Amino acid sequence: MKLYDLKAGMNPRRVRIYLAEKGIEVPSEAVDMMKGENRTPEFLRINPLGTLPVLELDDGTVLTESVAICRYVEALKPEPNLFGRDPLEQARVEMWNRRAEIELMRPLVEQFRHLNSFWKGRQAQHADYGEDQRRQAIRAMEWLDRELASRPCLAGDRYTIADITAQCAILLGKNTGAPIPDGLAHLKRWWDQVSARPTARA
Amino acid sequence: MKLYDLKAGMNPRRVRIYLAEKGIEVPSEAVDMMKGENRTPEFLRINPLGTLPVLELDDGTVLTESVAICRYVEALKPEPNLFGRDPLEQARVEMWNRRAEIELMRPLVEQFRHLNSFWKGRQAQHADYGEDQRRQAIRAMEWLDRELASRPCLAGDRYTIADITAQCAILLGKNTGAPIPDGLAHLKRWWDQVSARPTARA
Repeated sequence: MKLYDLKAGMNPRRVRIYLAEKGIEVPSEAVDMMKGENRTPEFLRINPLGTLPVLELDDGTVLTESVAICRYVEALKPEPNLFGRDPLEQARVEMWNRRAEIELMRPLVEQFRHLNSFWKGRQAQHADYGEDQRRQAIRAMEWLDRELASRPCLAGDRYTIADITAQCAILLGKNTGAPIPDGLAHLKRWWDQVSARPTARA
Repeated sequence: MKLYDLKAGMNPRRVRIYLAEKGIEVPSEAVDMMKGENRTPEFLRINPLGTLPVLELDDGTVLTESVAICRYVEALKPEPNLFGRDPLEQARVEMWNRRAEIELMRPLVEQFRHLNSFWKGRQAQHADYGEDQRRQAIRAMEWLDRELASRPCLAGDRYTIADITAQCAILLGKNTGAPIPDGLAHLKRWWDQVSARPTARA
Protein backbone atom coordinates (compact mmCIF):
# COMPACT_ATOMS: atom_id res chain seq x y z
CA MET A 1 0.00 0.00 0.00
CA LYS A 2 1.04 3.60 -0.57
CA LEU A 3 -0.53 6.75 0.82
CA TYR A 4 -0.39 9.92 -1.26
CA ASP A 5 -0.17 12.51 1.46
CA LEU A 6 -0.17 16.26 2.09
CA LYS A 7 1.38 17.27 5.41
CA ALA A 8 -0.72 20.42 5.93
CA GLY A 9 -3.99 19.00 4.61
CA MET A 10 -6.94 18.49 6.94
CA ASN A 11 -8.16 15.31 5.27
CA PRO A 12 -4.72 13.67 4.96
CA ARG A 13 -4.31 14.44 8.68
CA ARG A 14 -7.52 12.52 9.45
CA VAL A 15 -6.04 9.44 7.81
CA ARG A 16 -2.61 9.87 9.41
CA ILE A 17 -4.11 10.17 12.91
CA TYR A 18 -6.33 7.16 12.21
CA LEU A 19 -3.38 5.04 11.03
CA ALA A 20 -1.31 6.12 14.04
CA GLU A 21 -4.18 5.10 16.37
CA LYS A 22 -4.24 1.69 14.64
CA GLY A 23 -0.47 1.38 14.95
CA ILE A 24 -0.09 0.94 11.20
CA GLU A 25 2.72 2.45 9.13
CA VAL A 26 1.99 2.90 5.45
CA PRO A 27 4.70 4.09 3.04
CA SER A 28 3.74 7.54 1.83
CA GLU A 29 4.54 9.94 -0.98
CA ALA A 30 4.13 13.68 -0.46
CA VAL A 31 2.10 15.47 -3.13
CA ASP A 32 2.71 19.22 -3.01
CA MET A 33 -0.52 21.01 -3.86
CA MET A 34 1.27 24.38 -3.71
CA LYS A 35 3.37 23.24 -6.66
CA GLY A 36 0.30 21.80 -8.42
CA GLU A 37 1.56 18.23 -8.10
CA ASN A 38 -2.05 17.07 -7.57
CA ARG A 39 -2.96 18.46 -11.01
CA THR A 40 -0.29 16.76 -13.11
CA PRO A 41 -1.48 14.26 -15.77
CA GLU A 42 0.27 11.51 -13.79
CA PHE A 43 -1.61 12.25 -10.56
CA LEU A 44 -4.94 12.81 -12.32
CA ARG A 45 -4.59 9.32 -13.78
CA ILE A 46 -4.49 8.06 -10.17
CA ASN A 47 -7.27 10.36 -8.90
CA PRO A 48 -9.17 12.33 -11.56
CA LEU A 49 -10.55 14.61 -8.82
CA GLY A 50 -7.05 15.68 -7.74
CA THR A 51 -7.96 15.35 -4.06
CA LEU A 52 -5.80 14.01 -1.23
CA PRO A 53 -5.33 11.64 0.50
CA VAL A 54 -5.27 8.66 -1.85
CA LEU A 55 -4.52 5.08 -0.83
CA GLU A 56 -3.06 2.95 -3.61
CA LEU A 57 -3.15 -0.80 -3.04
CA ASP A 58 -0.46 -3.18 -4.25
CA ASP A 59 -2.61 -4.27 -7.22
CA GLY A 60 -3.03 -0.64 -8.30
CA THR A 61 -6.55 -0.23 -6.89
CA VAL A 62 -7.08 3.35 -5.79
CA LEU A 63 -9.19 4.51 -2.85
CA THR A 64 -10.00 8.15 -2.17
CA GLU A 65 -12.11 9.84 0.54
CA SER A 66 -10.60 9.75 4.02
CA VAL A 67 -13.35 7.78 5.72
CA ALA A 68 -13.50 5.19 2.91
CA ILE A 69 -9.74 4.68 3.32
CA CYS A 70 -10.04 4.35 7.11
CA ARG A 71 -13.01 1.99 6.87
CA TYR A 72 -11.03 -0.25 4.51
CA VAL A 73 -8.16 -0.41 6.99
CA GLU A 74 -10.65 -1.03 9.84
CA ALA A 75 -11.96 -4.13 8.03
CA LEU A 76 -8.41 -5.47 7.59
CA LYS A 77 -7.35 -4.70 11.18
CA PRO A 78 -10.38 -4.33 13.46
CA GLU A 79 -8.51 -3.49 16.66
CA PRO A 80 -8.13 -1.03 18.26
CA ASN A 81 -11.69 -0.36 17.15
CA LEU A 82 -12.47 3.14 15.87
CA PHE A 83 -15.74 2.56 13.94
CA GLY A 84 -17.94 0.79 16.51
CA ARG A 85 -18.26 -2.88 17.41
CA ASP A 86 -21.93 -3.79 16.95
CA PRO A 87 -24.56 -2.47 14.52
CA LEU A 88 -25.88 0.12 16.95
CA GLU A 89 -22.48 1.45 18.00
CA GLN A 90 -21.39 1.49 14.35
CA ALA A 91 -24.47 3.52 13.46
CA ARG A 92 -23.88 5.92 16.35
CA VAL A 93 -20.23 6.41 15.33
CA GLU A 94 -21.27 7.00 11.70
CA MET A 95 -23.96 9.45 12.84
CA TRP A 96 -21.48 11.43 14.93
CA ASN A 97 -18.77 11.32 12.30
CA ARG A 98 -21.23 12.73 9.77
CA ARG A 99 -22.54 15.32 12.20
CA ALA A 100 -18.94 16.39 12.83
CA GLU A 101 -18.37 16.64 9.07
CA ILE A 102 -21.62 18.38 8.16
CA GLU A 103 -22.19 20.68 11.14
CA LEU A 104 -18.61 21.51 12.13
CA MET A 105 -16.02 20.62 9.49
CA ARG A 106 -17.92 21.93 6.47
CA PRO A 107 -18.49 25.49 7.76
CA LEU A 108 -14.92 25.64 9.08
CA VAL A 109 -13.58 24.65 5.64
CA GLU A 110 -15.92 27.11 3.94
CA GLN A 111 -14.95 30.07 6.12
CA PHE A 112 -11.30 29.22 5.39
CA ARG A 113 -11.86 28.99 1.62
CA HIS A 114 -13.99 32.14 1.39
CA LEU A 115 -12.20 34.42 3.86
CA ASN A 116 -8.52 33.44 3.91
CA SER A 117 -5.99 35.07 1.61
CA PHE A 118 -4.47 31.64 0.92
CA TRP A 119 -7.40 30.92 -1.42
CA LYS A 120 -7.38 34.30 -3.16
CA GLY A 121 -6.92 33.67 -6.88
CA ARG A 122 -7.28 29.92 -6.36
CA GLN A 123 -11.07 29.97 -6.24
CA ALA A 124 -13.92 32.49 -6.27
CA GLN A 125 -14.27 33.91 -2.76
CA HIS A 126 -17.59 35.21 -1.44
CA ALA A 127 -16.80 37.03 1.80
CA ASP A 128 -20.39 37.45 3.02
CA TYR A 129 -21.01 33.73 2.59
CA GLY A 130 -17.71 33.05 4.38
CA GLU A 131 -18.79 35.21 7.32
CA ASP A 132 -22.09 33.29 7.52
CA GLN A 133 -20.17 30.05 7.59
CA ARG A 134 -17.86 31.29 10.34
CA ARG A 135 -20.90 32.14 12.47
CA GLN A 136 -22.35 28.71 11.65
CA ALA A 137 -19.11 27.05 12.78
CA ILE A 138 -19.28 28.88 16.11
CA ARG A 139 -22.91 27.76 16.56
CA ALA A 140 -21.77 24.19 15.88
CA MET A 141 -19.11 24.51 18.58
CA GLU A 142 -21.72 25.78 21.04
CA TRP A 143 -23.93 22.79 20.20
CA LEU A 144 -21.02 20.34 20.60
CA ASP A 145 -20.18 21.95 23.94
CA ARG A 146 -23.70 21.08 25.16
CA GLU A 147 -23.37 17.53 23.82
CA LEU A 148 -19.98 17.00 25.45
CA ALA A 149 -21.35 18.07 28.83
CA SER A 150 -22.67 14.54 29.32
CA ARG A 151 -20.00 12.26 27.84
CA PRO A 152 -16.24 12.20 27.23
CA CYS A 153 -16.23 11.71 23.43
CA LEU A 154 -18.49 12.53 20.51
CA ALA A 155 -20.04 9.09 19.99
CA GLY A 156 -19.89 7.94 23.60
CA ASP A 157 -17.33 6.87 26.15
CA ARG A 158 -14.38 6.30 23.89
CA TYR A 159 -12.35 7.94 21.12
CA THR A 160 -13.51 7.05 17.58
CA ILE A 161 -13.24 8.24 13.99
CA ALA A 162 -15.88 10.87 14.88
CA ASP A 163 -13.44 12.49 17.31
CA ILE A 164 -10.67 12.40 14.70
CA THR A 165 -12.93 14.27 12.27
CA ALA A 166 -13.93 16.90 14.82
CA GLN A 167 -10.34 17.25 16.03
CA CYS A 168 -8.99 17.93 12.52
CA ALA A 169 -11.81 20.40 11.91
CA ILE A 170 -11.15 22.29 15.16
CA LEU A 171 -7.43 22.44 14.33
CA LEU A 172 -8.26 23.99 10.95
CA GLY A 173 -10.50 26.56 12.68
CA LYS A 174 -7.75 27.32 15.23
CA ASN A 175 -5.30 28.03 12.40
CA THR A 176 -7.70 30.10 10.28
CA GLY A 177 -9.38 32.58 12.59
CA ALA A 178 -12.18 30.45 14.00
CA PRO A 179 -10.88 29.05 17.30
CA ILE A 180 -13.05 27.62 20.08
CA PRO A 181 -14.68 30.65 21.74
CA ASP A 182 -14.04 31.34 25.42
CA GLY A 183 -16.56 29.79 27.77
CA LEU A 184 -17.12 26.46 26.01
CA ALA A 185 -15.62 24.46 28.86
CA HIS A 186 -16.80 21.00 27.75
CA LEU A 187 -15.56 21.38 24.18
CA LYS A 188 -12.29 22.81 25.50
CA ARG A 189 -11.86 19.83 27.89
CA TRP A 190 -12.47 17.45 24.96
CA TRP A 191 -10.03 19.38 22.74
CA ASP A 192 -7.32 19.32 25.42
CA GLN A 193 -7.78 15.56 25.78
CA VAL A 194 -7.73 14.67 22.07
CA SER A 195 -4.80 17.04 21.46
CA ALA A 196 -2.80 15.34 24.20
CA ARG A 197 -3.05 11.92 22.54
CA PRO A 198 0.33 10.69 21.23
CA THR A 199 -1.20 10.46 17.74
CA ALA A 200 -2.40 14.07 17.55
CA ARG A 201 0.63 15.26 15.60
CA ALA A 202 0.78 12.33 13.19
CA MET B 1 -38.83 1.29 14.82
CA LYS B 2 -40.34 4.55 13.61
CA LEU B 3 -39.13 6.81 10.82
CA TYR B 4 -39.72 10.54 11.12
CA ASP B 5 -40.17 11.45 7.48
CA LEU B 6 -40.61 14.39 5.12
CA LYS B 7 -42.15 13.44 1.78
CA ALA B 8 -40.45 16.17 -0.29
CA GLY B 9 -37.06 16.01 1.45
CA MET B 10 -34.00 14.78 -0.41
CA ASN B 11 -32.45 13.00 2.55
CA PRO B 12 -35.67 11.31 3.73
CA ARG B 13 -36.06 10.11 0.12
CA ARG B 14 -32.62 8.48 0.27
CA VAL B 15 -33.75 6.42 3.25
CA ARG B 16 -37.17 5.60 1.75
CA ILE B 17 -35.61 4.34 -1.51
CA TYR B 18 -33.06 2.35 0.50
CA LEU B 19 -35.76 0.73 2.65
CA ALA B 20 -37.84 -0.06 -0.46
CA GLU B 21 -34.80 -1.73 -2.06
CA LYS B 22 -34.37 -3.82 1.08
CA GLY B 23 -38.07 -4.70 1.09
CA ILE B 24 -38.52 -3.31 4.59
CA GLU B 25 -41.53 -1.36 5.75
CA VAL B 26 -41.00 0.92 8.73
CA PRO B 27 -43.91 2.80 10.32
CA SER B 28 -43.42 6.48 9.69
CA GLU B 29 -44.61 9.82 11.00
CA ALA B 30 -44.65 12.85 8.74
CA VAL B 31 -42.93 15.96 10.13
CA ASP B 32 -44.00 19.06 8.22
CA MET B 33 -41.04 21.43 7.97
CA MET B 34 -43.22 24.05 6.27
CA LYS B 35 -45.25 24.22 9.47
CA GLY B 36 -42.11 24.22 11.62
CA GLU B 37 -42.92 20.81 13.12
CA ASN B 38 -39.18 20.01 13.12
CA ARG B 39 -38.57 22.98 15.42
CA THR B 40 -41.06 22.20 18.16
CA PRO B 41 -39.66 21.47 21.65
CA GLU B 42 -40.99 17.90 21.31
CA PHE B 43 -39.12 17.22 18.07
CA LEU B 44 -35.94 18.97 19.23
CA ARG B 45 -35.90 16.62 22.21
CA ILE B 46 -35.71 13.77 19.67
CA ASN B 47 -33.20 15.47 17.36
CA PRO B 48 -31.64 18.72 18.65
CA LEU B 49 -30.48 19.53 15.12
CA GLY B 50 -34.04 19.51 13.76
CA THR B 51 -32.99 17.53 10.68
CA LEU B 52 -34.86 14.74 8.95
CA PRO B 53 -34.98 11.79 8.59
CA VAL B 54 -34.74 10.33 12.09
CA LEU B 55 -35.01 6.66 12.96
CA GLU B 56 -36.29 5.97 16.47
CA LEU B 57 -35.71 2.46 17.78
CA ASP B 58 -38.14 0.66 20.05
CA ASP B 59 -35.98 1.40 23.12
CA GLY B 60 -36.03 5.12 22.30
CA THR B 61 -32.55 5.25 20.76
CA VAL B 62 -32.43 7.89 18.05
CA LEU B 63 -30.38 7.70 14.85
CA THR B 64 -30.00 10.62 12.46
CA GLU B 65 -28.02 11.03 9.22
CA SER B 66 -29.40 9.09 6.26
CA VAL B 67 -26.37 6.89 5.64
CA ALA B 68 -26.00 6.04 9.35
CA ILE B 69 -29.65 4.93 9.36
CA CYS B 70 -29.19 2.86 6.21
CA ARG B 71 -25.97 1.27 7.45
CA TYR B 72 -27.71 0.24 10.67
CA VAL B 73 -30.48 -1.45 8.68
CA GLU B 74 -27.85 -3.07 6.41
CA ALA B 75 -26.23 -4.70 9.44
CA LEU B 76 -29.59 -6.08 10.60
CA LYS B 77 -30.63 -7.30 7.13
CA PRO B 78 -27.59 -7.69 4.86
CA GLU B 79 -29.45 -8.77 1.70
CA PRO B 80 -30.06 -7.46 -0.88
CA ASN B 81 -26.66 -5.90 -0.36
CA LEU B 82 -26.35 -2.16 -0.93
CA PHE B 83 -23.11 -1.32 0.93
CA GLY B 84 -20.61 -3.82 -0.55
CA ARG B 85 -19.82 -7.41 0.44
CA ASP B 86 -16.08 -7.51 1.17
CA PRO B 87 -13.72 -4.87 2.57
CA LEU B 88 -12.65 -3.63 -0.85
CA GLU B 89 -16.15 -3.42 -2.30
CA GLN B 90 -17.36 -1.75 0.91
CA ALA B 91 -14.57 0.82 0.60
CA ARG B 92 -15.36 1.42 -3.06
CA VAL B 93 -19.08 1.90 -2.30
CA GLU B 94 -18.24 4.29 0.53
CA MET B 95 -15.83 6.19 -1.73
CA TRP B 96 -18.46 6.59 -4.44
CA ASN B 97 -21.21 7.43 -1.99
CA ARG B 98 -19.03 10.18 -0.55
CA ARG B 99 -17.97 11.41 -3.98
CA ALA B 100 -21.66 11.59 -4.93
CA GLU B 101 -22.37 13.55 -1.75
CA ILE B 102 -19.39 15.91 -1.91
CA GLU B 103 -19.01 16.51 -5.63
CA LEU B 104 -22.64 16.32 -6.79
CA MET B 105 -25.17 16.52 -3.96
CA ARG B 106 -23.56 19.34 -2.02
CA PRO B 107 -23.38 21.87 -4.91
CA LEU B 108 -26.90 20.90 -6.01
CA VAL B 109 -28.21 21.56 -2.49
CA GLU B 110 -26.24 24.80 -2.28
CA GLN B 111 -27.52 26.19 -5.61
CA PHE B 112 -31.04 25.36 -4.41
CA ARG B 113 -30.58 27.05 -1.05
CA HIS B 114 -28.88 30.16 -2.42
CA LEU B 115 -30.84 30.72 -5.66
CA ASN B 116 -34.36 29.38 -5.10
CA SER B 117 -37.17 31.61 -3.79
CA PHE B 118 -38.25 28.77 -1.47
CA TRP B 119 -35.34 29.65 0.82
CA LYS B 120 -35.83 33.43 0.70
CA GLY B 121 -36.33 34.62 4.27
CA ARG B 122 -35.51 31.15 5.63
CA GLN B 123 -31.74 31.63 5.38
CA ALA B 124 -29.23 34.20 4.08
CA GLN B 125 -28.93 33.74 0.31
CA HIS B 126 -25.76 34.63 -1.58
CA ALA B 127 -26.66 34.53 -5.26
CA ASP B 128 -23.12 34.74 -6.64
CA TYR B 129 -22.06 31.81 -4.47
CA GLY B 130 -25.19 29.95 -5.60
CA GLU B 131 -24.29 30.53 -9.27
CA ASP B 132 -20.78 29.18 -8.61
CA GLN B 133 -22.28 26.10 -7.03
CA ARG B 134 -24.64 25.55 -9.95
CA ARG B 135 -21.66 25.62 -12.33
CA GLN B 136 -19.82 23.24 -9.99
CA ALA B 137 -22.79 20.85 -10.07
CA ILE B 138 -22.74 20.83 -13.88
CA ARG B 139 -19.00 20.08 -13.86
CA ALA B 140 -19.70 17.20 -11.47
CA MET B 141 -22.32 15.83 -13.90
CA GLU B 142 -19.79 16.05 -16.75
CA TRP B 143 -17.26 14.15 -14.65
CA LEU B 144 -19.83 11.48 -13.70
CA ASP B 145 -20.76 11.14 -17.37
CA ARG B 146 -17.14 10.24 -18.14
CA GLU B 147 -17.06 7.77 -15.22
CA LEU B 148 -20.30 6.09 -16.28
CA ALA B 149 -18.97 5.56 -19.82
CA SER B 150 -17.20 2.43 -18.58
CA ARG B 151 -19.62 0.85 -16.08
CA PRO B 152 -23.35 0.63 -15.38
CA CYS B 153 -23.43 2.03 -11.83
CA LEU B 154 -21.38 4.44 -9.74
CA ALA B 155 -19.44 1.92 -7.67
CA GLY B 156 -19.32 -0.85 -10.28
CA ASP B 157 -21.67 -3.31 -11.91
CA ARG B 158 -24.58 -3.08 -9.55
CA TYR B 159 -26.89 -0.57 -7.86
CA THR B 160 -25.75 0.52 -4.37
CA ILE B 161 -26.27 3.27 -1.80
CA ALA B 162 -23.95 5.44 -3.94
CA ASP B 163 -26.49 5.37 -6.77
CA ILE B 164 -29.32 6.21 -4.35
CA THR B 165 -27.37 9.28 -3.21
CA ALA B 166 -26.63 10.44 -6.76
CA GLN B 167 -30.20 9.72 -7.86
CA CYS B 168 -31.73 11.85 -5.08
CA ALA B 169 -29.24 14.63 -5.84
CA ILE B 170 -30.03 14.59 -9.58
CA LEU B 171 -33.76 14.67 -8.80
CA LEU B 172 -33.23 17.77 -6.64
CA GLY B 173 -31.30 19.42 -9.48
CA LYS B 174 -34.02 18.49 -11.98
CA ASN B 175 -36.64 20.17 -9.77
CA THR B 176 -34.58 23.30 -9.00
CA GLY B 177 -33.14 24.54 -12.28
CA ALA B 178 -30.04 22.35 -12.56
CA PRO B 179 -31.07 19.38 -14.73
CA ILE B 180 -28.65 17.04 -16.52
CA PRO B 181 -27.36 19.06 -19.50
CA ASP B 182 -27.95 17.79 -23.03
CA GLY B 183 -25.19 15.63 -24.42
CA LEU B 184 -24.29 13.67 -21.27
CA ALA B 185 -25.43 10.36 -22.74
CA HIS B 186 -23.89 8.06 -20.14
CA LEU B 187 -25.25 9.97 -17.16
CA LYS B 188 -28.66 10.15 -18.91
CA ARG B 189 -28.62 6.39 -19.51
CA TRP B 190 -27.81 5.79 -15.83
CA TRP B 191 -30.54 8.25 -14.75
CA ASP B 192 -33.15 6.55 -16.98
CA GLN B 193 -32.21 3.20 -15.47
CA VAL B 194 -32.27 4.22 -11.81
CA SER B 195 -35.50 6.22 -12.33
CA ALA B 196 -37.16 3.16 -13.84
CA ARG B 197 -36.57 1.04 -10.75
CA PRO B 198 -39.79 0.20 -8.89
CA THR B 199 -38.36 1.89 -5.77
CA ALA B 200 -37.62 5.25 -7.40
CA ARG B 201 -40.85 6.85 -6.21
CA ALA B 202 -40.69 5.47 -2.66
